[in-house]
Amino acid sequence: MTQTRRRDGKSIRRPVVRYESGAPSTRADSVAVEEPLEIRVAGETLALTMRTPGHDHELAVGFLFSEGILPGKGGLGSVVHCGRPGEDGFGNVIDVTAAPGTAFDVERTRLARRGTITTAACGVCGRASIDDLLARIGAVARERRRDPDAAGARFSARNLSQWVRSLRDQQPLFAETGGVHAAALLSNDGQFIATREDVGRHNAVDKVVGRAVLDGLVPLDGHALVVSGRTSFEIVAKAAVAGVSLVAGVSAPSSLAIDVATRSGLTLVGFARDEAFTVYANPERIAD
Amino acid sequence: MTQTRRRDGKSIRRPVVRYESGAPSTRADSVAVEEPLEIRVAGETLALTMRTPGHDHELAVGFLFSEGILPGKGGLGSVVHCGRPGEDGFGNVIDVTAAPGTAFDVERTRLARRGTITTAACGVCGRASIDDLLARIGAVARERRRDPDAAGARFSARNLSQWVRSLRDQQPLFAETGGVHAAALLSNDGQFIATREDVGRHNAVDKVVGRAVLDGLVPLDGHALVVSGRTSFEIVAKAAVAGVSLVAGVSAPSSLAIDVATRSGLTLVGFARDEAFTVYANPERIAD
Repeated sequence: MTQTRRRDGKSIRRPVVRYESGAPSTRADSVAVEEPLEIRVAGETLALTMRTPGHDHELAVGFLFSEGILPGKGGLGSVVHCGRPGEDGFGNVIDVTAAPGTAFDVERTRLARRGTITTAACGVCGRASIDDLLARIGAVARERRRDPDAAGARFSARNLSQWVRSLRDQQPLFAETGGVHAAALLSNDGQFIATREDVGRHNAVDKVVGRAVLDGLVPLDGHALVVSGRTSFEIVAKAAVAGVSLVAGVSAPSSLAIDVATRSGLTLVGFARDEAFTVYANPERIAD
Repeated sequence: MTQTRRRDGKSIRRPVVRYESGAPSTRADSVAVEEPLEIRVAGETLALTMRTPGHDHELAVGFLFSEGILPGKGGLGSVVHCGRPGEDGFGNVIDVTAAPGTAFDVERTRLARRGTITTAACGVCGRASIDDLLARIGAVARERRRDPDAAGARFSARNLSQWVRSLRDQQPLFAETGGVHAAALLSNDGQFIATREDVGRHNAVDKVVGRAVLDGLVPLDGHALVVSGRTSFEIVAKAAVAGVSLVAGVSAPSSLAIDVATRSGLTLVGFARDEAFTVYANPERIAD
């Protein structure tokens, strides 16, 4: 059976054997493509992430912004895929440079990220260190908001439920493969600014944040981030650093996700399904 | 409202506001605990992972085994939490040492892992490099199997469906919080060897593999790994390196998960729900 790749490279047909009530049959199924992307800063490798191809520029920009390396659109020089089209590996390595006359400080304290903090001095493991990390993210979140108190940002309960339903209609790759996460960025009045799907939940968030950075929309106070699954520390930290006012997930948050939301003045919503949802942090921003 | 932590530290009660059909009510909800664990090798920090506390020894051992750093139980010296009980951060740093007279080679080529390959020469981004990586994992998988062809390992379609149902009954933390992944290791005859829950899917797999390493059960040919969600490259690579014969997920696999399963002689099952499932690689190991 042939393996046909969709033109945009996000899914591929694979031969499978389907068992139903013990009876096997052969057919072809669409699966989400997962491939490595190496993110370089001025030629130096900074990170490797397994992602669904597409919107790589946004992914790289969103990642560097979340890590505190890229301060915003003004600090950005170029973002280019390395190599030449047709060469092996083209499309899987991307290089980001700082604006002329500036440089990125990649040694700048990074947010806690699976596997990337590898210095001997552990910055985030003691309770005091975790509290310190949460305070630092909170400070960045407030610093990055136009309105530190975001007093104007209110979200109606009715709209929230509607947005989560709308997200479901904007997941073509999930509908096709059942194998990707989604993240959407919405303005306060419910306009979808960007929706991205990816095998990695963090990548989907990096892509929408990267889109916002490239469009000069950050800080994102007054905006909401809606995600298809659970909310972990990392997802909420990325949103907080971008100044987002509300994060809503279809599934559960973790304890640390709640902590970082609380400390960042970010409203955290979970189990947003049908007409119900649960608010885990800063519920005052929800208007009935 | 008080925040009560469950005695085993895996969940915590948090005050929430629940909206149903627009009407808010306050109550307390259980959420899964997420905290950082720093994994050290002979005092040097190797990785940081956000995990649900508990079974940290298994997590560290499974992680090092999957990365190719720990060859097996015989290579293991000590696994201890750093510091003293009661000290801030105790329990969130764990140190692993090699058996007396031996040393771990942490520079040994690691499997592709989000964020940990940070050398300037990218090893896994070109198609040729990806193929080479898959071949290397396949070679390790075959090398680690007692029976390279695993000809004896057959799994019945009926048992597979039963195992996935049984896994659902062994997820107390998910039942309580809705916020964790699960992984279970089963012998060929369907005995559950270990089931672990964690906010991170990779951690849940590292914990069951670590348990098997500590019990001297690796290589795991003839065994099955059942996971509660999607199967990515990383999950299947960990299973392949441990010599596991079959991986079954409740949800979709990625393209690269299928590739690594195919090259490792590992049977990959997805969408295992009710009486149906889909086989994405090496279907010959399923007996009707």
